[in-house]
Amino acid sequence: MKSTKELISILQDRVNHLAFKSQPAGLYEPLSYTMSLGGKRVRPLLCLMACNLFKEDVEAAIAPALGIELFHNFTLLHDDVMDRSFMRRGKPCVHVKWDENTAILSGDALQVVAYQYIAQAPAESLQACLDLFSTTALEVCEGQSYDMLFETQSKVGEEEYLEMIRLKTAVLLACGLKMGAIIAGASAEDAQHLYDFGIHIGIAFQIKDDLLDVWGDPAIFGKAIGGDIMCNKKTFLLINALKRVEGAQRDELLHYMTSNDIERSEKVKAVTALYESLRVREECEAKMNHHQALAMQALASLSVSEDKTFYLRELAESMMKRQM
Amino acid sequence: MKSTKELISILQDRVNHLAFKSQPAGLYEPLSYTMSLGGKRVRPLLCLMACNLFKEDVEAAIAPALGIELFHNFTLLHDDVMDRSFMRRGKPCVHVKWDENTAILSGDALQVVAYQYIAQAPAESLQACLDLFSTTALEVCEGQSYDMLFETQSKVGEEEYLEMIRLKTAVLLACGLKMGAIIAGASAEDAQHLYDFGIHIGIAFQIKDDLLDVWGDPAIFGKAIGGDIMCNKKTFLLINALKRVEGAQRDELLHYMTSNDIERSEKVKAVTALYESLRVREECEAKMNHHQALAMQALASLSVSEDKTFYLRELAESMMKRQM
Repeated sequence: MKSTKELISILQDRVNHLAFKSQPAGLYEPLSYTMSLGGKRVRPLLCLMACNLFKEDVEAAIAPALGIELFHNFTLLHDDVMDRSFMRRGKPCVHVKWDENTAILSGDALQVVAYQYIAQAPAESLQACLDLFSTTALEVCEGQSYDMLFETQSKVGEEEYLEMIRLKTAVLLACGLKMGAIIAGASAEDAQHLYDFGIHIGIAFQIKDDLLDVWGDPAIFGKAIGGDIMCNKKTFLLINALKRVEGAQRDELLHYMTSNDIERSEKVKAVTALYESLRVREECEAKMNHHQALAMQALASLSVSEDKTFYLRELAESMMKRQM
Repeated sequence: MKSTKELISILQDRVNHLAFKSQPAGLYEPLSYTMSLGGKRVRPLLCLMACNLFKEDVEAAIAPALGIELFHNFTLLHDDVMDRSFMRRGKPCVHVKWDENTAILSGDALQVVAYQYIAQAPAESLQACLDLFSTTALEVCEGQSYDMLFETQSKVGEEEYLEMIRLKTAVLLACGLKMGAIIAGASAEDAQHLYDFGIHIGIAFQIKDDLLDVWGDPAIFGKAIGGDIMCNKKTFLLINALKRVEGAQRDELLHYMTSNDIERSEKVKAVTALYESLRVREECEAKMNHHQALAMQALASLSVSEDKTFYLRELAESMMKRQM
């Protein structure tokens, strides 16, 4: 069995050697640029790790794993256009460096390239991999659609929010894991347990992200604290705060959400204090821990021996241990 | 063998029954809307006709044929955003009826749905259909990229223009034909002849479109005459005119291309007169006829009996006989 480090090294080598056609440069240069921005490559890594649980040789899973990473980068490229973002991983977004039309069209091409890699799955699992991938790709679009809808929707429920992050984030992690299992010839039950592991780790990871925006260490988190608070993003924290807050505290929270002339540090400090007073941090952590436990339970249900799941457990823990 | 009318009827029934998921409505309603706008469905029809040359039962080709039509509509949806178009087939474009983000995201989903239909190709031809489709999809993106590039490029050569329309228009017609042949189990040679037929008919069709913009009957052409002239679109006509024009006529053409305060009817009339004086219409028709002849030659090279290609020849002729 291969260590996480070995699989990362195999993967990184293949990501570094991804080559796109050269002409027209206006179509393909943004693809090389996007893929060179880096990222933790956690989705393809999960695919190889899942495959490696059942099979020593992971070669057959590498191209489909890259397909999932290419698709993930396609969604970031188009999401940045839709969200009017400027920077991605410390560099200008494609629609900023080039223009919006270039970002739309290059993204379209990147989605096709993703399918070209998925289509390299072994013949005996090709149909299953394609079905899983297309279903997942539509779900990711659905997640982005709900995310945009929630921006203008006055009330968002906790369940609606969890469903949105399941679609937008968790299903692609789960897809990578299940695809690795399918390619390795695992049983349908094991493939489903790995899928469930991915769903719960994805939801826990996204809740953690909401927590880090408020209580994270900016040096480690990689972005300024309070970004979600400043734009009134309906995170798990805000949704729960709005559910609980009453009286004068309610007026205070709504005041901070509707006034446009409040200084950043004041708003972040005040809303954080309200979150703490309302104990939404505890609620958020409880929900996160619940999904992490469900993830571990899914792993424990696998038919493989417990020591084989060591690397997946270790990766899940490292994903959740990002510094507060 | 089935008549064109029978195949259109089979196809229309399946297009009418295309059903998308209902939620989120902001993602899926634009897809039903786009597919309800109509269109001649010529790409999937060519796929079924090609299949029917070799096999009486075309059922296996229907889903992949729909995949090609879905992909074509996806490209229209995103092209309308990039080209800032307002209307499509007499109705507001998706980005006008909803908004730009909706058009981007719904388009992304439509491309996935297209792959879901292509992936329903029979197992024995699945890999070949996917490879052909992805290669073609990238080429269509390349064509749109060149088309946008040419808008700002001062000089466009005739060969560059022909390559752009091959990529943007012809390859998808060719892909439909070849896919139908592959699914029917035709020989590689026959599949290639049908592909070539599609390429040449596609190029001829696009040149015809340039001619119709200037000399078409507006009642039959379906849009106002002179649209290309008004926006200085680098059509086959303008490219050839710029290559030939000299002296005072050159000054006149450049004057009409650079002045913004000229009335539409005056500019269209003057540029049309220049085209006629420069005999670019004849050059354009000669090029169109050349590609139509190559298309017919490709059909004649097929291993099937000549009477079987009757419907394809008839369709090609009807595509080219659109009223001047």
